[in-house]
Amino acid sequence: MRREITGFSNPTVKYLRSLREKKHRKQARQFLAEGLRLLTDARESGRVPETLVLSTARDAHPLLTALEEAVLAARGEVIETTPDILAKITGKDNPQAIAGVFAEFDTSLETIERDAAPIWLVAQALRDPGNLGTMLRTGDAIGAGGLILVDDCADPFSVEAVRASMGAIFTQRLVQARWDEFVSWLRGGSGQLVAASLRNAVPYRGAPYAAPCFVLVGNESQGLPEAYEAACDLRVTMPMKGRADSLNAAVAAAVLGYEVLASL
Amino acid sequence: MRREITGFSNPTVKYLRSLREKKHRKQARQFLAEGLRLLTDARESGRVPETLVLSTARDAHPLLTALEEAVLAARGEVIETTPDILAKITGKDNPQAIAGVFAEFDTSLETIERDAAPIWLVAQALRDPGNLGTMLRTGDAIGAGGLILVDDCADPFSVEAVRASMGAIFTQRLVQARWDEFVSWLRGGSGQLVAASLRNAVPYRGAPYAAPCFVLVGNESQGLPEAYEAACDLRVTMPMKGRADSLNAAVAAAVLGYEVLASL
Repeated sequence: MRREITGFSNPTVKYLRSLREKKHRKQARQFLAEGLRLLTDARESGRVPETLVLSTARDAHPLLTALEEAVLAARGEVIETTPDILAKITGKDNPQAIAGVFAEFDTSLETIERDAAPIWLVAQALRDPGNLGTMLRTGDAIGAGGLILVDDCADPFSVEAVRASMGAIFTQRLVQARWDEFVSWLRGGSGQLVAASLRNAVPYRGAPYAAPCFVLVGNESQGLPEAYEAACDLRVTMPMKGRADSLNAAVAAAVLGYEVLASL
Repeated sequence: MRREITGFSNPTVKYLRSLREKKHRKQARQFLAEGLRLLTDARESGRVPETLVLSTARDAHPLLTALEEAVLAARGEVIETTPDILAKITGKDNPQAIAGVFAEFDTSLETIERDAAPIWLVAQALRDPGNLGTMLRTGDAIGAGGLILVDDCADPFSVEAVRASMGAIFTQRLVQARWDEFVSWLRGGSGQLVAASLRNAVPYRGAPYAAPCFVLVGNESQGLPEAYEAACDLRVTMPMKGRADSLNAAVAAAVLGYEVLASL
């Protein structure tokens, strides 16, 4: 279905705008993503938006046409609107010419196959949506299977996380689980759990990594709880030459993830 | 000097609050930093705030006493105020119990000694203050000398950058320069310029890094201009196993920086 929206007070505008807030995303089980590149990554990964919102000021592009066709074929809705209204929906002064509304994915542990990839990233109580999106992006780069979010993390479907993922929200698998659920699932099969840690750790370079390797980083300000580290198969540490005793969580995951990639 | 501020409309409150905006920071050549740990890093690195703002709700702490004494010894000002007013100044709902106003540093190339460290990080047109602060933090961790900001970057003295640096704004040297100034300075002595690049690049692992090694990353969305890459001594690339063709800028700097650290 196609339609045009020209008024700011249209209830669909109000609804789309509400998806910027977690409470409304949870109710609707939908989230927003913007930009032709990101939506094309989604389409090519088999994720077609339920609603596609296009700016009347857009330029024609074959990838845009492909998206519109995919949405209509899936009986989704294509909405045309003004750049001003699109800016109101996305909350950006200079919005991209296109946004999509997607159904939230199933993020249960049962949806992943551990042997599908040699590396998985795991984050515990990660609070910053930018860090979360960056971890997804890094996961894509190192050929990880996905990101497992343990305990109370930032919402992976927030606009900030989706943006920072640069499309990896659609290409990486995403899991949300409690720590005990995750450990119980992990110990039900093969898998090495590796913590970036300062306690009782070996140097991260040349450590005996083994696939499937689950790379675990902790909360931005607290790090990992001691009991979680103790449950790991391997604790590794990166050199810290200066005054600080930790790295940014997404940076730690990336430095460690690339080391695992090189050694497997 | 010591004084107490109890009113929101006090002109000092207005002034301190204005330092959250770049325009006012530039006029005043001062910036804000918060938190006992960060301000202690500053003090131990020889940077004492010109003004120290303390919450009346603070707990006593020997490091706090040391800070107060250092500020008063340097003829600075110690201001006590309510948690509400401190929240207004820092723009955080739950502010730390302490904030400091620092004089901006001299960020000219002449202030650094290239042989003081084996690694220097260089960012070109880096727009995100969080990425900038994270690069400073990573620089501290890998024993870099500092961060050289080339072309039009985010303001390193913004509250976001200072926060993300976790204190490294005080321990790393900071330089701001135009590209031609930087290259001309670099070529006036020893120094290897290494770009994280996709063009004409060798694998980043095992590349022939040499100290002092200047690790260069480009703008978040554009990457490095081709001419800048061509001016580098070495172009290296990280594996990209997925759909994306780039990493977050701060992540790229960290993965490459740790590799350089391991190989020097």
